[in-house]
Amino acid sequence: MADNNDVFDVVVIGAGPVGLNAAARAVRGGLTAAVVEERLAGGECEYYACIPSKALLWPMETAAEASRMPGLELSGPIDAAAVLAHRDETVSHRDDRHNVTWVENLPATFVRGHGRLAGPLRAEAATPDGGTRTLRARHAVVVATGSAPAIPDVPGLREAHPWTNREATSAEQVPKRLAVIGGGPVACEMSQALHSLGAQETTMLVRGDRLLERAEPFAGDMVAASMRESGIDVHFGRSATRVDRPAPGGPVTVHTDDGAQVDADELLLGTGRRPAVDDIGLETIGLQAKGPIEVDDSMRATAVPDGWLYAIGDVNGRNLLTHMGKYQARVCGDVIAARATGRPDDRPGLRDTADDRGAPQVVFTEPQVCMVGRTESRARADGFPVRTVEYDIGEVSGAEVRGVGYTGRAKLVVDEDRRVLLGATFVAPDIDNLLHSATITVNAEVPLDQLWHAVPPFPTVSEVWLRLLEEYGL
Amino acid sequence: MADNNDVFDVVVIGAGPVGLNAAARAVRGGLTAAVVEERLAGGECEYYACIPSKALLWPMETAAEASRMPGLELSGPIDAAAVLAHRDETVSHRDDRHNVTWVENLPATFVRGHGRLAGPLRAEAATPDGGTRTLRARHAVVVATGSAPAIPDVPGLREAHPWTNREATSAEQVPKRLAVIGGGPVACEMSQALHSLGAQETTMLVRGDRLLERAEPFAGDMVAASMRESGIDVHFGRSATRVDRPAPGGPVTVHTDDGAQVDADELLLGTGRRPAVDDIGLETIGLQAKGPIEVDDSMRATAVPDGWLYAIGDVNGRNLLTHMGKYQARVCGDVIAARATGRPDDRPGLRDTADDRGAPQVVFTEPQVCMVGRTESRARADGFPVRTVEYDIGEVSGAEVRGVGYTGRAKLVVDEDRRVLLGATFVAPDIDNLLHSATITVNAEVPLDQLWHAVPPFPTVSEVWLRLLEEYGL
Repeated sequence: MADNNDVFDVVVIGAGPVGLNAAARAVRGGLTAAVVEERLAGGECEYYACIPSKALLWPMETAAEASRMPGLELSGPIDAAAVLAHRDETVSHRDDRHNVTWVENLPATFVRGHGRLAGPLRAEAATPDGGTRTLRARHAVVVATGSAPAIPDVPGLREAHPWTNREATSAEQVPKRLAVIGGGPVACEMSQALHSLGAQETTMLVRGDRLLERAEPFAGDMVAASMRESGIDVHFGRSATRVDRPAPGGPVTVHTDDGAQVDADELLLGTGRRPAVDDIGLETIGLQAKGPIEVDDSMRATAVPDGWLYAIGDVNGRNLLTHMGKYQARVCGDVIAARATGRPDDRPGLRDTADDRGAPQVVFTEPQVCMVGRTESRARADGFPVRTVEYDIGEVSGAEVRGVGYTGRAKLVVDEDRRVLLGATFVAPDIDNLLHSATITVNAEVPLDQLWHAVPPFPTVSEVWLRLLEEYGL
Repeated sequence: MADNNDVFDVVVIGAGPVGLNAAARAVRGGLTAAVVEERLAGGECEYYACIPSKALLWPMETAAEASRMPGLELSGPIDAAAVLAHRDETVSHRDDRHNVTWVENLPATFVRGHGRLAGPLRAEAATPDGGTRTLRARHAVVVATGSAPAIPDVPGLREAHPWTNREATSAEQVPKRLAVIGGGPVACEMSQALHSLGAQETTMLVRGDRLLERAEPFAGDMVAASMRESGIDVHFGRSATRVDRPAPGGPVTVHTDDGAQVDADELLLGTGRRPAVDDIGLETIGLQAKGPIEVDDSMRATAVPDGWLYAIGDVNGRNLLTHMGKYQARVCGDVIAARATGRPDDRPGLRDTADDRGAPQVVFTEPQVCMVGRTESRARADGFPVRTVEYDIGEVSGAEVRGVGYTGRAKLVVDEDRRVLLGATFVAPDIDNLLHSATITVNAEVPLDQLWHAVPPFPTVSEVWLRLLEEYGL
């Protein structure tokens, strides 16, 4: 029987940004909470993904801006050692004490150990000392275990210990020759980052016929053109058939389906992620441990009786994006608190509407790819009456003052029946901050006729909004 | 009697961006139009204000970004000659043929000459050959003559031929010692730009006790701190009492009301602008030529019978901002076309709502000051039930990856009764593109509870939106 100290209103398994936010919202709502984490509190995002990758990418972006700007000259190539050192600062040298303290100050209980479900409203933590701590939840258990890199079934690949986002973002040395399998956000970002930091021979092997397949087609095309111009070797329609790495950490060879091979010092895998559902005890509550844990719009697992299990972040498969996981966490923590305390649980803030309507994503390549909501093809597939408009961002006055050669492209996807925006894509350098204008528009369903009165300041690249609306016919 | 060729549906006096847009919208609406311009078609903005000033400012901004970024080093100070040469490119070397061609292709008639009103529905152009061309308007005359720098009544000031925005933005040489009178946007922007390009001794004399008095107080304070850190000498509570410049173009001395003096090679005046209503024939229609031409929300001059006169842009005094003038021009051209052709003239697009509700402004200083709608003090003065929230932009994860020392501040002004945004201010480097998110929110009156579902992408500085809403209590 559990010690009373091990009974909480809410038990959260996983202390990534998503789990931490769920605990914080639940506590804010008047509940007690425990958070279980085996690895670093703060999660993949803080130490091995979003944060360090952007610390590695912004120098490239800023260098590109400087190179476009008349009157500025960089003294030489990017100093990789300085960038890696700053990267280490941004990840707190992979020390998670600040996050543990943050949990304790909520206040909530932090439990170090591997967390797993152990029957209804019950979890176990396998603690570092070899013991097991049982945690009972009065109201809810929240699974926030995230995701892990998907490793394709290619002979020799797993044995070659390829880099994933973890190794790439925490690299202490930049390989001279880098082979990359994949063409999604991680593959694109890390190829460019490492190339900018000294991976002179960078070769990308992309199975499909373009990069960033979930984006508007022009986005991947523009990133591929930029990569090739910088000297990255991008191959489409090319799959790995075998990987050889005779000595651990030594040279690696990727054989491809056209009979060619790529020799490299390191191999980076960017072939997607899968929900982290292994060994989290799903079987103890009668669920199968494969695929995402499906949830309703209040983040409650649909397959579990009595509604005590919630799943948020990558593990529910909705959108594998940190900020969307954190958003789900806010919904989840708030809705659990409302239900536990008998308050109404149907307020607008207690339902996830954004994952379907308008999840934003920024790929921090050069140029950046910023998108929200539905692409044209997705909107058509979903049956919306679609009209699109596009505009060359390089044509707005705000682009010209950003230096020589600032170019880009914008596209809006409009629901013609309701005259609201279904999606937007902006591809241009240093344009990540513009995306939130579209995220608000898509999520709040601001009618185009009201958007017309939102005047972009001159001369900024945000004037592309005016041009797009003019193209539309306003 | 006028030649038939000189009868148009609409006659526009002034071919700045505002006049050009009014003509274009009228023509798009099925009307014929003539545009009269004495100076360069494209106007102050394109040749002597917005465009060249930003071409002079972005190198400073980009250099600051590079200096904050570990791994990047500039080879030396900004190469002023290269920046000035690029500036000349951005202003098309002050050749306006492209704009004249643009007018002709609308199609519309471009008339070179000094334009003035000549009685109801009638204008005259004093042409370069010494002649006078009379232009008759069937439906409307639009005054879009802009504004001119205001020159305070200080002994010796006018005789010293101080630089205004025109001379500062078109400078061929950067003075070593620069004195600046004023603390508004032009004074701040051009002080920083010229200082960054070689004006080693830059001294600002500001009558009030802070910079950018129409912004939230912290904005001017942050810009002043940044200026002082860069070596600009900023004096508050100091007025010029006399200016001496013995030889034209020679050294200039500004005497101040504390008995001190500033010796400089050039004097820049940034003390505001006044509507350009001199010598535009207002007396021929019974109006007095002083102050702005007051208009209703359809841009129609309120003091003129029969409603044929419109005034847009700086000359109507609503908001002296190019983008707002262009917005008014769209309203104006569209409403004239609707009225001339008997279509309804009360559609939402045919009324100016943005000038009151949410005009955005960016001051391209380092840090940039981006604001829209009402400041707190303005909102309180206007009687709104106000609550504000503020957040340190340097605290968001998206700031940390922008380099070392990226800081800033954001503030929202909320109407507590309706839970909508009245205003927003962001002060930080390279944040101009974030402003449009607030401009949409303020103008479309997006409720805070809907904003909550607009998730900022991680890690960008736009995450400050989330933090602000959390501070608010969502």
